[in-house]
Amino acid sequence: MSNHADKSFDFKTLEILTSRVLQAMGAPINIADLTAESLVLSNLVGHDSHGIIRLSEYSGWVQSRNLIPDAEATIEWERDATAVIDGGWGFGQPASTLATEKSIEIARKYGTSTVVLKRTNHIGRLGEYVDEIATAGMMGIAFCNTGGAIVAPHGGVKAVLGTNPYAWATPGTDGHNFVLDFSTAVIAAGKVVLAGMSGEQIEPGALIDKEGKASTNPADLAGGGALLAFGGHKGSGLSVLIDVAAGAMSGNMPAAISQSGFGNGTVITAVDWSRFVDNGTFQSVAQQFATIMHQASALSGPKVLLPGELEAQTKARRLKEGVLITGGVQEGILEVADLYAVEIPEFH
Amino acid sequence: MSNHADKSFDFKTLEILTSRVLQAMGAPINIADLTAESLVLSNLVGHDSHGIIRLSEYSGWVQSRNLIPDAEATIEWERDATAVIDGGWGFGQPASTLATEKSIEIARKYGTSTVVLKRTNHIGRLGEYVDEIATAGMMGIAFCNTGGAIVAPHGGVKAVLGTNPYAWATPGTDGHNFVLDFSTAVIAAGKVVLAGMSGEQIEPGALIDKEGKASTNPADLAGGGALLAFGGHKGSGLSVLIDVAAGAMSGNMPAAISQSGFGNGTVITAVDWSRFVDNGTFQSVAQQFATIMHQASALSGPKVLLPGELEAQTKARRLKEGVLITGGVQEGILEVADLYAVEIPEFH
Repeated sequence: MSNHADKSFDFKTLEILTSRVLQAMGAPINIADLTAESLVLSNLVGHDSHGIIRLSEYSGWVQSRNLIPDAEATIEWERDATAVIDGGWGFGQPASTLATEKSIEIARKYGTSTVVLKRTNHIGRLGEYVDEIATAGMMGIAFCNTGGAIVAPHGGVKAVLGTNPYAWATPGTDGHNFVLDFSTAVIAAGKVVLAGMSGEQIEPGALIDKEGKASTNPADLAGGGALLAFGGHKGSGLSVLIDVAAGAMSGNMPAAISQSGFGNGTVITAVDWSRFVDNGTFQSVAQQFATIMHQASALSGPKVLLPGELEAQTKARRLKEGVLITGGVQEGILEVADLYAVEIPEFH
Repeated sequence: MSNHADKSFDFKTLEILTSRVLQAMGAPINIADLTAESLVLSNLVGHDSHGIIRLSEYSGWVQSRNLIPDAEATIEWERDATAVIDGGWGFGQPASTLATEKSIEIARKYGTSTVVLKRTNHIGRLGEYVDEIATAGMMGIAFCNTGGAIVAPHGGVKAVLGTNPYAWATPGTDGHNFVLDFSTAVIAAGKVVLAGMSGEQIEPGALIDKEGKASTNPADLAGGGALLAFGGHKGSGLSVLIDVAAGAMSGNMPAAISQSGFGNGTVITAVDWSRFVDNGTFQSVAQQFATIMHQASALSGPKVLLPGELEAQTKARRLKEGVLITGGVQEGILEVADLYAVEIPEFH
């Protein structure tokens, strides 16, 4: 039971306290601020699983020396329309931001770019970076392989793939970009753990036990089972290509081969699509398309949403109403703060 | 009932007769040969739905003047790492081949490329082109939007999206590249039509009726229903991004907006990944990865396959044993041949 009540906080308050904790972990202020903004942005758009709850995980990595908190990402090399960013095993968010900015800069010059990010920890929410590329008036595609094999390929019974996310964004309409961002696993591993703790079952089609049989029992994941890839052989194939391409290009290696079982090998592509489509024409097309999509909704029931629309709605609401942080998450962060002897009066 | 027996043919025989029919439709020999090779290659790798059966459809488009059989694809413009190919509304296969070759050439120079193909008819099997890029030692990603809205978005009840395929390939191992190629619809529209003709039901989860209710009755598609996108909101989101990005960049427009309801707007990206990964290292990684994937199979039942592995196996077998062409397909092609007064003694 939590001693702390669930409570809403202004996003700025969350950014400040998150940065304070990260600085206490050893991050310089620029790295701490940027990582804090990225984490709180995930809370703002409604993806709390990628928000400030991650401080506990990051702290564990700092303790185990997998994460070097003051490592600065650098440009390992840049040539024509390609570049490699070396994250130096520091925080993934500033490294990803550097890779994203580089992908935009190169695409502005050459029309397109491919930037690879290597030796980095958890990069956060992949959708943030392609959204940034779309805000720069471009199309962005990003994918990364995740250390730790936990997903079985289609038709298989052993966990040999990571949860390997994929994200894609273009400029949009109604004040938001079209932003797609998904894990190639049916559900997040964290959700299975949470369900296990609260005695709940998992949705059918997401999990197999160690014999390869369909399961809804969360205990089967830790017991030698595996998550399933979404969308049958198609989603499984996406996961395989992400693992091979991002794993090989980043040197992170596919999850099942990687020695470390750690880190995100990431590939970011930007396309300056103003070369291909006139902005005024696209604005009109995007608006028409959004209207058509909304009108494809059933007469009753929820409205069809464009990719990124739910996140934009959630962000607008949370900017106004604040971000609800559960008592449990507050306590987890207080524990981290204790470890580094930093005060968080906001949670008292 | 068919008067022609199902029969196996050597692929070369099929290429020659297919080219002959295409030439009779008005295609110059270079266009006819290349299109024939592409169609027969689809048969060889086991995707008969994209094989020579398409001659009937292409003939219809030639008759309706949607397809200009002697149009040569041209480079509309090329700048830095980007280019646009104009298909001139001719056959899509030679236009796609030009776009693919251009994407490889540019990526060789700049490390990566984005090439857009506009004003083209059916480009055939998307996987062929990314496979070609992988054979050149690169990573290829391609997607195209398809004219004719026939797929409902996740949670929607109206057909507003095309079947919008996506393909991705890298170099591989065991004599084949890793090649992923899928439609973002659960099943092909052609399969629904075929099931209707043979009185069969459709697999659950692929189709809704005009009220938006789940259906297995193929008649519901023509009756105002829609196909579903694969993989829930994730596959639906991919379909949306493909429709918007390929539609806008090619000028083909998203399916629901397009005036013509016709053609494939296509985007091809190549990455010269030798800049990122040493070939020897990758060969070893790919081999290890393939072994691990195969060992993820259940003790009994079919083996887990790598993307592209089934196609490689099928091709090896059909190169040796020939390609089975059903009596019905032979008769369809004979009808087309009659229209253009060309002989196909091979089918008599």
